[in-house]
Amino acid sequence: MLTKAVDLRSDTVTKPSEAMRAAMAAADVDDDVLGSDPTAHRFETEMARMMGKEAALFVPSGTMANLVSALVHCDTRGSEVILGDNSHMHIYENGGMSTIGGVHPRTVRNNPDGTMDIDKIVAAIRHPNGLCYPTTRLICLENTQGNCGGKCLSVEYTDKVGEVAKTHGLKLHIDGARIFNASVALGVPVDRLVRAADSVSVCLSKGLGAPVGSVIVGSKAFIEKAKILRKTLGGGMRQVGVLCAAAHVGVRDNVGMLADDHRRAKVLADGLKKIKQLTVDLTSVETNMVYFDITDPLISPGKLCQVLEQRNVLAMAISSKSVRLVTHYQISDSDVQHALTCIEEAVEEILLGNGKSKHLTNGVTANSYGN
Amino acid sequence: MLTKAVDLRSDTVTKPSEAMRAAMAAADVDDDVLGSDPTAHRFETEMARMMGKEAALFVPSGTMANLVSALVHCDTRGSEVILGDNSHMHIYENGGMSTIGGVHPRTVRNNPDGTMDIDKIVAAIRHPNGLCYPTTRLICLENTQGNCGGKCLSVEYTDKVGEVAKTHGLKLHIDGARIFNASVALGVPVDRLVRAADSVSVCLSKGLGAPVGSVIVGSKAFIEKAKILRKTLGGGMRQVGVLCAAAHVGVRDNVGMLADDHRRAKVLADGLKKIKQLTVDLTSVETNMVYFDITDPLISPGKLCQVLEQRNVLAMAISSKSVRLVTHYQISDSDVQHALTCIEEAVEEILLGNGKSKHLTNGVTANSYGN
Amino acid sequence: MLTKAVDLRSDTVTKPSEAMRAAMAAADVDDDVLGSDPTAHRFETEMARMMGKEAALFVPSGTMANLVSALVHCDTRGSEVILGDNSHMHIYENGGMSTIGGVHPRTVRNNPDGTMDIDKIVAAIRHPNGLCYPTTRLICLENTQGNCGGKCLSVEYTDKVGEVAKTHGLKLHIDGARIFNASVALGVPVDRLVRAADSVSVCLSKGLGAPVGSVIVGSKAFIEKAKILRKTLGGGMRQVGVLCAAAHVGVRDNVGMLADDHRRAKVLADGLKKIKQLTVDLTSVETNMVYFDITDPLISPGKLCQVLEQRNVLAMAISSKSVRLVTHYQISDSDVQHALTCIEEAVEEILLGNGKSKHLTNGVTANSYGN
Amino acid sequence: MLTKAVDLRSDTVTKPSEAMRAAMAAADVDDDVLGSDPTAHRFETEMARMMGKEAALFVPSGTMANLVSALVHCDTRGSEVILGDNSHMHIYENGGMSTIGGVHPRTVRNNPDGTMDIDKIVAAIRHPNGLCYPTTRLICLENTQGNCGGKCLSVEYTDKVGEVAKTHGLKLHIDGARIFNASVALGVPVDRLVRAADSVSVCLSKGLGAPVGSVIVGSKAFIEKAKILRKTLGGGMRQVGVLCAAAHVGVRDNVGMLADDHRRAKVLADGLKKIKQLTVDLTSVETNMVYFDITDPLISPGKLCQVLEQRNVLAMAISSKSVRLVTHYQISDSDVQHALTCIEEAVEEILLGNGKSKHLTNGVTANSYGN
Repeated sequence: MLTKAVDLRSDTVTKPSEAMRAAMAAADVDDDVLGSDPTAHRFETEMARMMGKEAALFVPSGTMANLVSALVHCDTRGSEVILGDNSHMHIYENGGMSTIGGVHPRTVRNNPDGTMDIDKIVAAIRHPNGLCYPTTRLICLENTQGNCGGKCLSVEYTDKVGEVAKTHGLKLHIDGARIFNASVALGVPVDRLVRAADSVSVCLSKGLGAPVGSVIVGSKAFIEKAKILRKTLGGGMRQVGVLCAAAHVGVRDNVGMLADDHRRAKVLADGLKKIKQLTVDLTSVETNMVYFDITDPLISPGKLCQVLEQRNVLAMAISSKSVRLVTHYQISDSDVQHALTCIEEAVEEILLGNGKSKHLTNGVTANSYGN
Repeated sequence: MLTKAVDLRSDTVTKPSEAMRAAMAAADVDDDVLGSDPTAHRFETEMARMMGKEAALFVPSGTMANLVSALVHCDTRGSEVILGDNSHMHIYENGGMSTIGGVHPRTVRNNPDGTMDIDKIVAAIRHPNGLCYPTTRLICLENTQGNCGGKCLSVEYTDKVGEVAKTHGLKLHIDGARIFNASVALGVPVDRLVRAADSVSVCLSKGLGAPVGSVIVGSKAFIEKAKILRKTLGGGMRQVGVLCAAAHVGVRDNVGMLADDHRRAKVLADGLKKIKQLTVDLTSVETNMVYFDITDPLISPGKLCQVLEQRNVLAMAISSKSVRLVTHYQISDSDVQHALTCIEEAVEEILLGNGKSKHLTNGVTANSYGN
Repeated sequence: MLTKAVDLRSDTVTKPSEAMRAAMAAADVDDDVLGSDPTAHRFETEMARMMGKEAALFVPSGTMANLVSALVHCDTRGSEVILGDNSHMHIYENGGMSTIGGVHPRTVRNNPDGTMDIDKIVAAIRHPNGLCYPTTRLICLENTQGNCGGKCLSVEYTDKVGEVAKTHGLKLHIDGARIFNASVALGVPVDRLVRAADSVSVCLSKGLGAPVGSVIVGSKAFIEKAKILRKTLGGGMRQVGVLCAAAHVGVRDNVGMLADDHRRAKVLADGLKKIKQLTVDLTSVETNMVYFDITDPLISPGKLCQVLEQRNVLAMAISSKSVRLVTHYQISDSDVQHALTCIEEAVEEILLGNGKSKHLTNGVTANSYGN
Repeated sequence: MLTKAVDLRSDTVTKPSEAMRAAMAAADVDDDVLGSDPTAHRFETEMARMMGKEAALFVPSGTMANLVSALVHCDTRGSEVILGDNSHMHIYENGGMSTIGGVHPRTVRNNPDGTMDIDKIVAAIRHPNGLCYPTTRLICLENTQGNCGGKCLSVEYTDKVGEVAKTHGLKLHIDGARIFNASVALGVPVDRLVRAADSVSVCLSKGLGAPVGSVIVGSKAFIEKAKILRKTLGGGMRQVGVLCAAAHVGVRDNVGMLADDHRRAKVLADGLKKIKQLTVDLTSVETNMVYFDITDPLISPGKLCQVLEQRNVLAMAISSKSVRLVTHYQISDSDVQHALTCIEEAVEEILLGNGKSKHLTNGVTANSYGN
């Protein structure tokens, strides 16, 4: 592409900043599998401190972060996890919990705001020694909840679920891929927001902009077990400090910019609302995600994304009528305006050309990437 | 117990009839693991014929029947099964599909009549080669649907789901633990009722009264694989013909008596309706199960079952307000009347004694057996 | 077949005795999944007593007995089991430990007498918290060792391995499919022989002659967990007392006859030694198994078994040069003589007819049944 | 440490070169999970070409490379893999094949030269549809064989095993963590050396010096499946081009230096031979690994490594009497001489001080890292 794309598919698409590139090039590294990488140590120590937990572990991806966390909490055969029926862990992580880990998922309905009703969680809990059911060992929350428009779970709700977990002898894991977005949007310090959790996964390559990686935080004992399981899965990396150095820059530089991402998402939503073939629920835009529906049956999400791509604006078709836009620190105010203009033009172009255009089959009509 | 109990906990509690006992004692048997047991062969051949499938396999239990079926259809790592969120396979079979088989369950809501909405089934299907989700390989139905009051799925509904499965290259399994009850209640031949299914499990030790076992039916190729997996799980038995002989009697003698079981369940429900502390939905009684709720907060299901047990009437507390009664061929018309009398008396006794009775903690307050 | 076959394929082929048939027909039974079968309770109590352990559990097969035992001891993800490279559990149980249970087997070489060198066992042990290896949790022995000719492990050897297990915090399981044969051959009470073991599986349908089943014995806590796992695998059976009643007769009547089985195996071996086309190691015949090799290249094991089958004598070809014969309580002294005569005749017939016989492809040339 | 350590623990310890650091800083990257990273594409294309296979995939580690490969070839429940009893995959990869993948390992003895006897491989193969055993689907080789002193498997041997695999319908995977060392030592082009293999894993962070990663090569269909499984395990990384850029430099710059690593290993071995308390088999040094035994009972490997560490020379104690030294491109000729001097001094120091030294418990006495 000649001109820089305005890439709104996900906040995973950011390129490393100059500061990150410099940090990678200068990183003091050693073999982290042998436990010797100083940059990895420093980063993990800092992340544990920020999140208010004892220890931290760098892993290659958010999927591994959640998988390792769930499997460490459910290390006994016959374990069951309670999680949202619309959660990323249930829908977009290959069912790894079951297919790789043999853990049985028990879903509870996610409300539109991303919560699960507390009484439904309680009703789903199953205690040890049942003859004909698995034993519940873990509850999982997701904050922000991606599939619910990037909605935030409040600290009160999270604490309440933590209380339920504690009462029933269960663990609480938070898929905090975008926990910093939630923290910023809610105005609650991130360590306070996850206080009730036994483990949290934090994605470094979404809003924080790092090229690669997630981090898991929890107790020392939890992280010791997580380290072994990371090795089992193949996530133990040698001079991993090069990645940690970049991630450290992301945490330092980008958390402060998330509020701008959220503001820009609202601007995007406001702009979309003015296009009459589209609908968008303004109240749903709490963080950096905007979902909009296309009301005109002549315009499919796949087609819209395709025409946008020709204009160097990248969006993600999510269903047969919805499109998702995600802001991040490499989307500027003018990028937002440019994107809005292009979307308006694309809608017009499709409607004009619709009579003569052939049927498009290669438009993406579902999110096959789950981010 | 001095007098014979009226055991309404489940239709699994029947004792072998004299004809079954005689058949066991006389059975011509050999080593079925070596493939040589003539009685097992004869029984499996007969069951395949009755169910309208190519082949059949005797297994020790309904749980194994469903587990083997699901795992044969999902023999590839990364498989997903669509099944009802209230189905026996999901709730009461130890999550074996995941915890033993590594298969990921994707639940769709069971309507009160036991069906899952067709469009929700279709929406849950995920096709091969997705980067971040498992591949759907199987849809499971349950007929009758135990947790929905023993409701029947119609042949039209079953065919429609079979159509969906075929269209999407999926298999359809029916947990037919009580498929003969459904066949009798609907007045549809059992082979017709399961025509759309690639495999069916049939319980022999519920309404059919056999002491032990279930049978799986399907194509020859499916049964060949099922036989290997049965061996893996430890379900290959030696002179198993002794059990098949009893089951054969059950199939011969008891199918014809299921209509009476259903009639008696309705009588029970009618009688319960007259007790003012209880509610029962008469329209929900389609087969041999009666669920009733206790509306008086002074009477817990556990307590009621306990007081009934002192009168030699056995019932099963299902939740914090519900009780289940199941009829079977060893429950006569007079047993039904006796049970109704005892329930009425028990309710009175609890209400009278409630002031002075100590709190009872050992009442069963949930179905821990799942049958 | 018109005349009764002399079936020497395995000791799994026995038909239930009249006493067993009567016991099945008369058994006082109830729903064992609901925990109510009196005959199952009585039998399990008796087996626990005989084996000198706290509790016992009836399961449908030896494969399930071993699988449940291994998985209960290895209930944590990342477990490793040390077992013989020639053991039944490793070779003939479908790898269920791994394929169903996710347990990693670490084999140690079986010596010809069935033992594994103690120092090799010790060297294979791996302690918890290793970053790159599983944690050893279990050692398995097999007594008698089927694939080593039915050899017995002495009480001294078993105790020594028990010592190693205890020292390293591991459990010891004995696959005692034929532990009564070992007890009788060694002249050591069976409870003494397995004293060092945390769990033992005992097959009821081999030398003990029951139609179906095995029993697991161990501590109460172990059996509680085993019961749940038995349910998961689908081994929970309803009126299972019918099988326990038959097994109880087997334990009562047949243990005393095992010495005769062993004597007859020696007679068989002596007789085979006189046939010049065959070799047999007389010292290897410690219990009820006789393995012999065919030295004449014109006679294949598959062919020999086939010709024998025409004479109503059944044997099992084990490899490209070996055949196995197993005695049991339905093989009499005259059956042994008849079998020897038939083998001699079969050898002659093959040698005579060899020029004109067509190539036989359907002779079994490997033990596909593993018993 | 003030002076640069001479780190001979493993070839995994190299720091990224200046060229690698520059490449990371300058890499043109995008979201590889969305399939858009140009540097990852370029690197994978180049690796596929070099290895003579259709396609390649970058993964975070050698453990993941082997795990993904084995599980893709064994994607059906009930699979068995034949591999060396002393292979890295069996001993040092957490048993992931079983504990995560449910695949049953069947080991064949590794000869001292790293080979498994062909007839033993053939004898271990088990064909589909066996009632009581898993189905063999894969044979794994390791070249060079780390636990056998870094010995090379010849192209003739590899081809022969490939022939066996093909004949029996199996796949052949080569754990080629150090396949370039083998290629250089044997003087055989690497693509020729692995021609018989269906898949090969190549470690980029051992002799090739990259900070992180391995690559898998195979057919396009194989790599497509591997990509999904990589995502399942959590090995899908976003702007992974930063790592691929460094690895690309390693492949370009370091392959040509492996011959020097091998030469220096021989110099090390020659020098060690002159120290009378040590023994080393000169003929065993084929590549970049030197194993030596300590014959003096007063010197333990752990103690020797500890005293060496004080001199800034790092070695790895491998067993109760062996130590391993590994050369790599950051070990110069003078480093080798320095290490030899230090080892000689350390031996003397231990012998002199032995009377008064306290017992050391923290000496590593086993390779807990498996590299």
